[in-house]
Amino acid sequence: MKIYNNPAPEQWTDLCLRAKAGENAEVDKIVSNILQRVRIGGDEALMQLASEIDGLAIPYDLVVSDAEFAKAEAEVSDSLKAAIQTAAENISAFHRAQLPSEVRIETMPGVVCMQRPVAIHNVGIYIPGGTAPLFSTVLMLAIPARIAGCRRVVMATPCDRQGRVAPAVLYAARICGIDTVYKIGGAQAIAALAYGTESVTPVDKIFGPGNRFVTAAKQQVGGRVVSIDMPAGPSEVMILADDTSVPEFVAADILSQCEHGADSQGIVVCDSMQLAEKIKEAIELQASTLDRAEFVGRSLENSRIIVLPDRKDMIAFANLYGAEHLIISLRDPMLAADGITAAGSIFIGNYSPESAGDYASGTNHTLPTSGWAHSCSGVNIDSYMRKTTIQHLTQEGLARLADTITTMADAEGLEAHAQAVKIRMQCK
Amino acid sequence: MKIYNNPAPEQWTDLCLRAKAGENAEVDKIVSNILQRVRIGGDEALMQLASEIDGLAIPYDLVVSDAEFAKAEAEVSDSLKAAIQTAAENISAFHRAQLPSEVRIETMPGVVCMQRPVAIHNVGIYIPGGTAPLFSTVLMLAIPARIAGCRRVVMATPCDRQGRVAPAVLYAARICGIDTVYKIGGAQAIAALAYGTESVTPVDKIFGPGNRFVTAAKQQVGGRVVSIDMPAGPSEVMILADDTSVPEFVAADILSQCEHGADSQGIVVCDSMQLAEKIKEAIELQASTLDRAEFVGRSLENSRIIVLPDRKDMIAFANLYGAEHLIISLRDPMLAADGITAAGSIFIGNYSPESAGDYASGTNHTLPTSGWAHSCSGVNIDSYMRKTTIQHLTQEGLARLADTITTMADAEGLEAHAQAVKIRMQCK
Repeated sequence: MKIYNNPAPEQWTDLCLRAKAGENAEVDKIVSNILQRVRIGGDEALMQLASEIDGLAIPYDLVVSDAEFAKAEAEVSDSLKAAIQTAAENISAFHRAQLPSEVRIETMPGVVCMQRPVAIHNVGIYIPGGTAPLFSTVLMLAIPARIAGCRRVVMATPCDRQGRVAPAVLYAARICGIDTVYKIGGAQAIAALAYGTESVTPVDKIFGPGNRFVTAAKQQVGGRVVSIDMPAGPSEVMILADDTSVPEFVAADILSQCEHGADSQGIVVCDSMQLAEKIKEAIELQASTLDRAEFVGRSLENSRIIVLPDRKDMIAFANLYGAEHLIISLRDPMLAADGITAAGSIFIGNYSPESAGDYASGTNHTLPTSGWAHSCSGVNIDSYMRKTTIQHLTQEGLARLADTITTMADAEGLEAHAQAVKIRMQCK
Repeated sequence: MKIYNNPAPEQWTDLCLRAKAGENAEVDKIVSNILQRVRIGGDEALMQLASEIDGLAIPYDLVVSDAEFAKAEAEVSDSLKAAIQTAAENISAFHRAQLPSEVRIETMPGVVCMQRPVAIHNVGIYIPGGTAPLFSTVLMLAIPARIAGCRRVVMATPCDRQGRVAPAVLYAARICGIDTVYKIGGAQAIAALAYGTESVTPVDKIFGPGNRFVTAAKQQVGGRVVSIDMPAGPSEVMILADDTSVPEFVAADILSQCEHGADSQGIVVCDSMQLAEKIKEAIELQASTLDRAEFVGRSLENSRIIVLPDRKDMIAFANLYGAEHLIISLRDPMLAADGITAAGSIFIGNYSPESAGDYASGTNHTLPTSGWAHSCSGVNIDSYMRKTTIQHLTQEGLARLADTITTMADAEGLEAHAQAVKIRMQCK
C-alpha cells in the first residue's frame, strides 16, 4: 500500500481514479445476446441458458416452493435469525423515518399545486449467488420496498446445480414479505425481470448488485426497458484519520473493504507521515492473519494512503473522490461531516465501522460507487417511489394566469396551447 | 381519430402502445462518433462539428457574452418579461415547498442514523433550438437547481448560423441565475457537458429535452459517464371525461398536445359513445382553425378515443397507460386522482388545462413519457440533490450491535467485516 506525502493538487484527480470495471465489448455482446434470447424465447430460453451456463438439469422449477422456504427456515440457526431480526428492525426504523409527505401549496389564489409520493408497483430484486450468500442485501432492498408500499416485490437469484438457494437468503426473503423468488441468475435474470416471460411478470424497476454480466445487463435495459437502482462499480472506502483515530481500527476497516473483491479500493487520508506509517504497519500485520490474505493482498494494490497537511485539504480531497463509504475518524467528526458534499454513506468517529452500516445500524448498504456519489443517492425510500404532481385551478385561478400562459405560449409559437386557455375564458 | 367502444381488457395493452421513437442503430452510430470526437478533440472538435452540422463560420465564441445577454434583455417585450416573472414565481414557490429536510433517528440507544439532502454541485441544462424558443424549459430546469443549491448551473443551446440564441431563452437563463451559456447544440453539446473540453467544465448531471440525436447522446452517456434526468420520449396527454366535462375544452387540450410534434399522442377516455362523438367533432372543428392544421393532423393519427363503461375501468386504464399528462375532467375529480397510481402530472377539473402546467401553475413540465411514469418522477427538487446517510455509533451502541454484525458477517463469509467490530470491542 503506497503512501503519497502531500501530493500537489494537480495530482489529486489521478489519485481519485478508481480501478475501473470499464466497458467490455465482449461482455456487452454476450449479454446483449442473452437479453435477446430471453425476450424472444421466454421460459424456454431461461431453461436452455440455465443448462448451458449454470449446468442445471432442465426443466427445473423456476419458482421457489413453500417446501423450500420451510426447509430454509429450519436450516438457519437461531442466532442468525436473531441477528437478521435485529438488523431488520433497525433498517425498518430508519427507512420508515424517510417516508416523504405530500406537499400542497396554493401558488396563487385558485391555483393549488401538490406533489404526491406514490410507491412503484412492481419491483424486482436481484441477489447474486456464488460463495457468499448475500442475505443482508435482501434486507437492504426488500425492507424499503415494503415500507414504501410496493405492491409486488419479487426476487431473482441463482441456484446451485441441485436447484438450491442459500437458506439464509430464502429466510431473509420470507421475513421481508417476498412471496415469489425466481431461481434465475446472471444476465438472464435481468432479462426475465425486464421483459417478462410466461412465468415472470415484468417489473418496473430492478434493484441489486451482481457480477459483470448482471451489471452489463442492467446497463443495457436501464432507461430503455425498465428503471434500475443505480450505476454499479467496485466497492470502496475512504477513511479520514488524525491523531484521535486508532490505527488498528483504520486498518481493520480498510481490510474489511478489501475482502469484498480484488477490485475493491481503500483510501486513507491522514495528516501526518507518522500516522500513515503506523496505519500501514497495522494493515500489514492484520492482513497476514486473515484467511483470505492473498485475495485481500490484490485489492490492497489498488489502495493508497495519502498525507495532506490540513483538515481543509482532507475534506476537499474527500469531496473530489466522492466515496461510497466515508469513515471520518477525526477530532470533531460531525463538524467535518458538515463539510462533506459527496459521499454515499458517512461513518462518524472511532466506533462506527463500515460493517455496522453494511449490516445493522439501519442505513442502506446499496450505495453509489466510482464517484457516482456526486450525482446519485444510495438506495433509500425514494428509490421505491415516484412523486406525481397535481394541479387544480379554479375558473378564477385560471383567469388570473390566463395572460401569463397565453403570452408565453404565443412567444413559443404554440398556438393551441394558448387556445386551450382562451376557449375556457370565452365560455363563462 | 378513431373511437374504440368498450374494448376488451386483453386489448388494453395494445391500446396503451406509444408511437415509439424506438432504437435507431443509424442515429446511435452517428451519435457515438460525435461523442468520441468531442471526448478526444475538445473545443477543436466542437468547432468542426458546428461547421459541418450547423454551418457556422468558425471559430466562433462558444460562450454567450454579457453584451449578448444585455441585447437579449432589450429585445424581450415587457409583457413577456412580466409573464416569465409570474411563471418563475409560481415555479419557485412550488419547488421551494418540496425541499427535503434532514432525517435523524436513533435506531437503538447509541446508534444514530441520519439522511442528509445535499445539492448536486455541477448541473448542465440542455435547451433545444429550432423553430420554437423553449424559454419555459429554462425556467423549469434552472429554477429548481437554484433552489436546491446547486453551485454551478450551466446551459448549452444551439445558436443560428449568425451565432445568435433566441432572446427569450437568454433572458430566462439570466433571471434564473445562469451565468454561463454555451452555444453548442445537438449530441456534441451533451458530449461537452459529459466529458468536458478546454472551455466546458464537465457536469455531474444533464437535464433537458432534445431531438433524437440529443436523446441518443443522453442515453449513451447516462449512467456511464454522467447522470441524466430521465428517459425521453414523445409527449402525450390522456384526458378522462364524463358528462361533467366540456367537449370543447377536451378538444382544445388534445390539440395543444398534438401541436408538440407528429409523434405526440392524445388519448381521451370517456364513458359514453355520445360524448366520444361530441369530442371527436369538437377536435375536428377546432383543428381546422389552427395555423398548423396539417402538422396537428399527423399526430391526431396516433390519437384515440376510448369508451369504457364505468369510472373504475377508466381509472384502471389510466394507470395501465401511465400518462405524462393526465387531465381528470370527471365528477369529483380529486377523488378520482386518489385512485391514480401512475402519471407524471395530473390536471384536475375543467379549468386546469395542460398548458397551465406547461407554463405557469408552478408544477414542472419535464415529465416521464412513454409509460416511464410507472417508475420515474418528473423533474422535481430531488432531481438536483443526493441524500447522504450518516451513522454515528457510540462505543456502547456498537457493543449493543456487535453480536448482530459479527454473526451476519460470519454467515456471509466476510471475516474482516467481523474483525472490524471485534478489534473495537477488544480495545476498551
